[in-house]
Amino acid sequence: MTGTLTIAGLGPGDAALVTPEVSAALGEATDVLGYAPYVARVPAREGLRLHCSDNRKELERAGEALRLAADGNSVVIVSSGDPGVFAMAAAVFEALEAAPQWQDIPIRVLPGVTAMLAAAARAGAPLGHDFCAINLSDNLKPWAAIEKRLRLAAEADFAIALYNPRSASRPEGLGRALDILRDAGCGERIVIFAHAVTTAKERIETMRLAEARPEMADMATLVIIGNSATRKVGRWVYAPRRAS
Amino acid sequence: MTGTLTIAGLGPGDAALVTPEVSAALGEATDVLGYAPYVARVPAREGLRLHCSDNRKELERAGEALRLAADGNSVVIVSSGDPGVFAMAAAVFEALEAAPQWQDIPIRVLPGVTAMLAAAARAGAPLGHDFCAINLSDNLKPWAAIEKRLRLAAEADFAIALYNPRSASRPEGLGRALDILRDAGCGERIVIFAHAVTTAKERIETMRLAEARPEMADMATLVIIGNSATRKVGRWVYAPRRAS
Repeated sequence: MTGTLTIAGLGPGDAALVTPEVSAALGEATDVLGYAPYVARVPAREGLRLHCSDNRKELERAGEALRLAADGNSVVIVSSGDPGVFAMAAAVFEALEAAPQWQDIPIRVLPGVTAMLAAAARAGAPLGHDFCAINLSDNLKPWAAIEKRLRLAAEADFAIALYNPRSASRPEGLGRALDILRDAGCGERIVIFAHAVTTAKERIETMRLAEARPEMADMATLVIIGNSATRKVGRWVYAPRRAS
Repeated sequence: MTGTLTIAGLGPGDAALVTPEVSAALGEATDVLGYAPYVARVPAREGLRLHCSDNRKELERAGEALRLAADGNSVVIVSSGDPGVFAMAAAVFEALEAAPQWQDIPIRVLPGVTAMLAAAARAGAPLGHDFCAINLSDNLKPWAAIEKRLRLAAEADFAIALYNPRSASRPEGLGRALDILRDAGCGERIVIFAHAVTTAKERIETMRLAEARPEMADMATLVIIGNSATRKVGRWVYAPRRAS
């Protein structure tokens, strides 16, 4: 008997941001797989098997989930935020492409509140005009592609959300990204460092890009760079709807 | 006595995608304001005043909400999707900037599942790599800015989510946008037309950009254009994590 595979987004951290759809899927699961800190956010219950793995093991995790589903289990893979944004959904379809024998397994992707939306909400409305999202990790793509996108994003006057800005194994990227944007004339733009949004450790800092330093970010930080018209009103940052 | 103003996202349509945080805010509200079809999604209850307005009246609605909050009410403005993405949050901060007397009103922005995330989830994982979101409405910005962003987004090889692709008053924009992307060499890219996602009228169509026609979209459609590496596995569309 074939089971099912659900790829679910847990939102940014606060349980009040988990959709009822995702909660229902977790309530019916036999097996939950994910990076350990995300699996730790799933309510424990008798009969629910939890499978934790390292955050670099996306493809192995996807394969294990497909195998468990093929064996008849109700499997949920969890991501933080939204599973389709730099998270597990793409890894599952990659694994599926390599495994035609599993392509009849019923799969659902359940969206969630991705980090940039939660960070933007805490800061105001910095994504109220056209914007882009760039994963600053070069584990799976050449750094040159990131540089090119940053330059073109600045030229397009997009607000820019930077995911995975910094990690212990990639301490250099964010500094280089900030340099590229300064060289592109974005020094006066407003930058938001949103740390651990919606958790007890939440911290939101805003400043001009000229003053931003890479040490202000870690892997729990989402960085948003405003467009050229982004401004402050009181403590809030917003992108005017009439920006050019 | 000062009230409060909450700017809340109702998600794409399905009640199972409304976050518990938003449901709690609606449960405590005295007044809910919004475009009529969104207000119609708020559960009615005794004592809750509903204020509907036209979808071009964002700034007037924001002003009315601030006035009601200043008078001591618990006011919620609702948007579809996420309130920070081409929706009410930016309009509220614009109204607030023009009205210093209201700048002490406690404001909260509650994020939601924005249309592109729900559309992407239904289609697979087309936003699994770097992407951008462009509002195709030129009501509040020059069309030239949209054209420039489309060209640069193609050059950057972003996946592209197009919000508000078409309306009765703007029948031309999407055709011009598709032409620009074809001219930029994107004819072979996969395009997703996601109509009324998560509602009873949901319809997902995928094709090559060369075959896309503007009549395939209306105001309830979200269009996602894949990057150059986006591919299909079975009925699913996904952006490989290792794309250049």
